Amino acid sequence: MTPVTVLGLGPMGRALATAFATAGHPTTVWNRTPGKAIGLDAAVAASAAEAMSASPVVVVCVLNYEAVRSILDAEALVGRTVVNLTGGSPAQARETAVWAGAHGIDYLDGVILNGVVGGPEAALLYSGPHEVYRAHRATLAALGGNGTYVGTDPGRSAGFNVSLLDLFWTSMFGVVHAFRLAAAQDIGAADLREHAKVMAGLVPELVDVVAEHVEAGHFPGDASTIESAASILDDVIDTVRADGLDDGVLSAGRAAVRRAVEAGYGSDGFSRLAVL
Amino acid sequence: MTPVTVLGLGPMGRALATAFATAGHPTTVWNRTPGKAIGLDAAVAASAAEAMSASPVVVVCVLNYEAVRSILDAEALVGRTVVNLTGGSPAQARETAVWAGAHGIDYLDGVILNGVVGGPEAALLYSGPHEVYRAHRATLAALGGNGTYVGTDPGRSAGFNVSLLDLFWTSMFGVVHAFRLAAAQDIGAADLREHAKVMAGLVPELVDVVAEHVEAGHFPGDASTIESAASILDDVIDTVRADGLDDGVLSAGRAAVRRAVEAGYGSDGFSRLAVL
Ligand SMILES: NC(=O)c1ccc[n+]([C@@H]2O[C@H](COP(=O)([O-])OP(=O)(O)OC[C@H]3O[C@@H](n4cnc5c(N)ncnc54)[C@H](OP(=O)(O)O)[C@@H]3O)[C@@H](O)[C@H]2O)c1
Ligand SMILES: NC(=O)c1ccc[n+]([C@@H]2O[C@H](COP(=O)([O-])OP(=O)(O)OC[C@H]3O[C@@H](n4cnc5c(N)ncnc54)[C@H](OP(=O)(O)O)[C@@H]3O)[C@@H](O)[C@H]2O)c1
Repeated sequence: MTPVTVLGLGPMGRALATAFATAGHPTTVWNRTPGKAIGLDAAVAASAAEAMSASPVVVVCVLNYEAVRSILDAEALVGRTVVNLTGGSPAQARETAVWAGAHGIDYLDGVILNGVVGGPEAALLYSGPHEVYRAHRATLAALGGNGTYVGTDPGRSAGFNVSLLDLFWTSMFGVVHAFRLAAAQDIGAADLREHAKVMAGLVPELVDVVAEHVEAGHFPGDASTIESAASILDDVIDTVRADGLDDGVLSAGRAAVRRAVEAGYGSDGFSRLAVL
Repeated sequence: MTPVTVLGLGPMGRALATAFATAGHPTTVWNRTPGKAIGLDAAVAASAAEAMSASPVVVVCVLNYEAVRSILDAEALVGRTVVNLTGGSPAQARETAVWAGAHGIDYLDGVILNGVVGGPEAALLYSGPHEVYRAHRATLAALGGNGTYVGTDPGRSAGFNVSLLDLFWTSMFGVVHAFRLAAAQDIGAADLREHAKVMAGLVPELVDVVAEHVEAGHFPGDASTIESAASILDDVIDTVRADGLDDGVLSAGRAAVRRAVEAGYGSDGFSRLAVL
């Protein structure tokens, strides 16, 4: 089994180290603040450089790319493979790949899509040189059944990630704001909860609808039009303002809807906004 | 079986008329633009007033409350019950209830939460005088198994509706923007689709988490903090801006997150935003 080093022991780093160790990989760990390795079946390195020198595969998963670049040591890493599972932008991933290439370090950039590591629910994406992925595919399999290689552009997995986080966090803005608005209407969280779950549960199938429309380049408004969304949004925004709440997110979305109507797409389906 | 009139034959009005007729209620319909009743098992009234005079229960479901008020005829409706299933704000529902009360018309305000009418999947809410709801509950059962009476305040069902539509449309802003951002990253809709469904599918369970935190008045940041959301959002927004796309919704949400951090809640869970 290939020895693996994990740099960073936040919730994700701990899960990564656990998954590698459980799969039988000799695992070395390091964290900036000591004392985070408690309970892990892994060797604890005394320094980041020692940790990087311990294994041919070095997985890093910390707060952000700034932290990554402050940790990675070109000298200790020459001839090794870095798999960077830190979340960031495609541009940051590409810059880090260029840096690695310039120092003779093999580099894969990956993302943990849903915060799950190990097992069939995990969804990780990897991008970078295909031969590097192929060489370490069996090792990375320890992180879960759904590892997917998405291409040679090292920024590609981050491209998926930022797009998906756009969807996720925008949805979460809606979730928290819905509870806030309901409270202003004297509707308690316990009363809203089940209805809100049903409403949120409608979105995955609409993801399919939007994807189909985008693929077909055709945005039928038979089920619901941009104009009717505009009318509904006005009712929601009126209520939000009357209650003295922040209407920033809704008003910014409403502005995008207005631009679509002004561009002549009012009777198209809402999916049209995915290509404007 | 109580005779029922349906005013408005958009997609929802047609579904309502179909459900009443299928359940065996003698059904009369009217629509501003003629010719929309084709295929319905219902009597077509020659005028709105004639339609309102035909039944003790008059259901109206049109574009908005402005249209409702232009259609409803106090003289024709005296002594009858209006069930208004048009979408709008709580304030509009309350105003219409006041108008109805002043004219001796019984009034229930309701909402069709998910666009489904009839059958077990339908989710309709009703508010207004309890005795009016009780008197027509059996008739309204034709519209689906999940009719729920939410209270005497006629604006209460609209209050649920605007809160839930806030969640829904904000999520949809995220869905279309995710596909747009992915396209800018050369990631096609077919490639994003399954991952986006998985991501959207995480939201219903987070609705539960937010509801639990709000009910408990306690917002633990153990799974993920407001500060880490801020960091992730910055990566997403950087990418959106670098691609020259509209960052309005994301930046408005980011501003709310910033205010939460400035208020000292950075290490709380994201659910804290539901009470700010
Ligand atoms: N949590 C999730 O559900 C999830 C899901 C998908 C992706 N991700 C991504 O995975 C990555 C890690 O997330 P996480 O939840 O495990 O924890 P995190 O809170 O994002 O990061 C904590 C880790 O980063 C280290 N760190 C922070 N700043 C550092 C610096 N300047 N130098 C060295 N180390 C530094 C911390 O070390 P100290 O202990 O010394 O502070 C700790 O090891 C993030 O990029 C995140 O976006 C997380
Ligand atoms: N579609 C959904 O999935 C859904 C889900 C939940 C709730 N709702 C709510 O249900 C209501 C009806 O929606 P819908 O989808 O059936 O159709 P809609 O497009 O919202 O409304 C169309 C209906 O409104 C009538 N109308 C519009 N302006 C009018 C006016 N000034 N005077 C008289 N009639 C007027 C139309 O008559 P003409 O044919 O003459 O134009 C038609 O009957 C809306 O309030 C909507 O928010 C819809």
